[in-house]
Amino acid sequence: MSVTAPKGFEAAGVAAGLKSKGGPDVALVVNRGPLDAAAAVFTSNRSKANPVIWSQQAVADGRAAAIVLNSGGANCFTGAFGFQTTHLTAELVAALLGVAAGDVLVASTGLIGEGDQAFRDRVLDGVRAAVPALASTPEAGTAASEAIMTTDTVAKRAVLESPEGWTLGGMAKGAGMLAPALATMLVVITTDAVLSPEQADAHLRGATRQSFDRLDSDGCMSTNDHVTLMASGASGVVPDPAAFQAALDALTRDLAQQLMRDAEGASHDITIEVTGAASEADAVEVGRSVARNNLFKAAVFGDDPNWGRVLAAIGTTGAAFDPYDVDVSMNGVRVCHAGGPDRPRSEVDLSPRALHLAIGLNAGSATATIWTNDLTHDYVHENSAYSS
Amino acid sequence: MSVTAPKGFEAAGVAAGLKSKGGPDVALVVNRGPLDAAAAVFTSNRSKANPVIWSQQAVADGRAAAIVLNSGGANCFTGAFGFQTTHLTAELVAALLGVAAGDVLVASTGLIGEGDQAFRDRVLDGVRAAVPALASTPEAGTAASEAIMTTDTVAKRAVLESPEGWTLGGMAKGAGMLAPALATMLVVITTDAVLSPEQADAHLRGATRQSFDRLDSDGCMSTNDHVTLMASGASGVVPDPAAFQAALDALTRDLAQQLMRDAEGASHDITIEVTGAASEADAVEVGRSVARNNLFKAAVFGDDPNWGRVLAAIGTTGAAFDPYDVDVSMNGVRVCHAGGPDRPRSEVDLSPRALHLAIGLNAGSATATIWTNDLTHDYVHENSAYSS
Repeated sequence: MSVTAPKGFEAAGVAAGLKSKGGPDVALVVNRGPLDAAAAVFTSNRSKANPVIWSQQAVADGRAAAIVLNSGGANCFTGAFGFQTTHLTAELVAALLGVAAGDVLVASTGLIGEGDQAFRDRVLDGVRAAVPALASTPEAGTAASEAIMTTDTVAKRAVLESPEGWTLGGMAKGAGMLAPALATMLVVITTDAVLSPEQADAHLRGATRQSFDRLDSDGCMSTNDHVTLMASGASGVVPDPAAFQAALDALTRDLAQQLMRDAEGASHDITIEVTGAASEADAVEVGRSVARNNLFKAAVFGDDPNWGRVLAAIGTTGAAFDPYDVDVSMNGVRVCHAGGPDRPRSEVDLSPRALHLAIGLNAGSATATIWTNDLTHDYVHENSAYSS
Repeated sequence: MSVTAPKGFEAAGVAAGLKSKGGPDVALVVNRGPLDAAAAVFTSNRSKANPVIWSQQAVADGRAAAIVLNSGGANCFTGAFGFQTTHLTAELVAALLGVAAGDVLVASTGLIGEGDQAFRDRVLDGVRAAVPALASTPEAGTAASEAIMTTDTVAKRAVLESPEGWTLGGMAKGAGMLAPALATMLVVITTDAVLSPEQADAHLRGATRQSFDRLDSDGCMSTNDHVTLMASGASGVVPDPAAFQAALDALTRDLAQQLMRDAEGASHDITIEVTGAASEADAVEVGRSVARNNLFKAAVFGDDPNWGRVLAAIGTTGAAFDPYDVDVSMNGVRVCHAGGPDRPRSEVDLSPRALHLAIGLNAGSATATIWTNDLTHDYVHENSAYSS
């Protein structure tokens, strides 16, 4: 299901020999219309992969007929040869579908700095296999979502049907965030609602801002992140803007939380809720600083409610707060109040996988929620042995 | 040896029951004069420990007669009671030495949020035991350096004798950096050179800027970092300013590298040399960004020369560089050139503990060197089980 749930979309996922461990590694999602509105957001990393550089240009006119994605190679820092590979990939998809190459988006994930002739040959072979496999069935959507997995242990998909008569579908891979971003996160969202390119762009930016942008698994920004929304208009329904935004917000939050729950090596899912901030920007800065504090994250791995490391992380920010008027609660137990210990840390039970960390800055009324994970032996292991 | 090497200084290290694993945990270093010039730099964390808040005020006049340090408790976020403990500690040292409390600096390291009556009693008992133990012997300097250890596996000491007739001594603990700073780093440097408070301050800031400030083990800024320089003038020698700065630079670099080599759980010492930067600030920003990239650091742990993660980290900075004109070498093998792969990564041997990572930005002529460590299973373990 997922991206094929809305009317007007076909998908495929095939194995092209790109992933060293085998399995499907090339995905194709095609918008059969009648509309071809599209919007995308990309990594803000200044070291961008070739598919990101290509797709930024291709989507600039607000239109896309298809997106082709591969795992097993990031095609980043692969020189002119790598950019040519991206270009050839889009041209091949376009020729086989009878569309313009400039309407084909490309996304890749895998190791940086690898993209030789064998990589190119396999990607192109994958495209040749994917086009005849295109279908609008649930199975085709599932196959596409599996072809973009790298270290993911489960495929991430979501579908949301509106009572207005339109549908949203989405698939995602990765364990990370968008801007700044990490690992590689690739997301394709489809809808059969009737949207203009401008509407698609505004809705997508609104939704990512409070979903993928709030996910910070390990603070490392990827070179390849790419989130695309494609609208086919095939439902014939012009959605209520507020209803569409709410649905897209919910779908992107769902996918973002699926990413969090499958983050590399994690043993705790941490929801950091910052309240009482002077501004939303302050709340996000505080949440992000805590989410990136290795010492705090290692303590959570050890089921240690080490709230001092939370305070130390807050102190590195520029956010408005008084160190003597901060509250910190873990899973409902307020362990720090007014700059000193409150309830004994022994009352905090960190054995569940979910940790709710509440930070009260007492400096205003703005809030933000950031999602992250703990820092574990498995994270270190997976990222020291990474070679997909 | 160490802090007692220069004339005019006495030191002691005693066990007061603060550290759960036992051993010496209260250190005292006294400047017997004739001068009492002092300068200090502290963490830039806005969440500051009580001893930092105290010592910032106490050293503001450029004078200090003594510094008392404890491990086994950070005395941070311990409320008004914790600040009173710091104040009482300084007053007790002052009374026993016959000096003013405002001339006694205090430094602490250990768990944040712990500082009850038992902690206070033990610190004060430690002071009462340390004063009669004060001596100018090498053994006394060694004892002091051991009393400030927490997760350190070796004590860090350095001595440097100038042909001009003055001496520098120093001791340090921690695995971190100063501003921004991590773990807790405490450093005491002594000299018998004749220095004014202003000279001491200028020399210390110049030296820390290119030593402790360039050490970034895990990107986490401590609430307790404190580096103090005390000058007794007991040699009677007014040093050549350039010679003194060079000696202090060398001594602080020596101590900083001792900290790097003993960083928690590390299996590689990484020297990141950034050249060709448009400014020193750019070079430092690039080096720091790489030093804080968990994915790169985990790869080094796995002996994986994953230079793509270096490029991804550079791309998150605001430094001037062209992604298609960056060179990256590891242990002398240039693996990335002009935005693409150069020598095969298999030629890089990461089995030695030392890794030299050279980044050529080709954007100017400024340089900077940052020291860091890899991200290991042992780092996660030590910081999940931390309770000293």
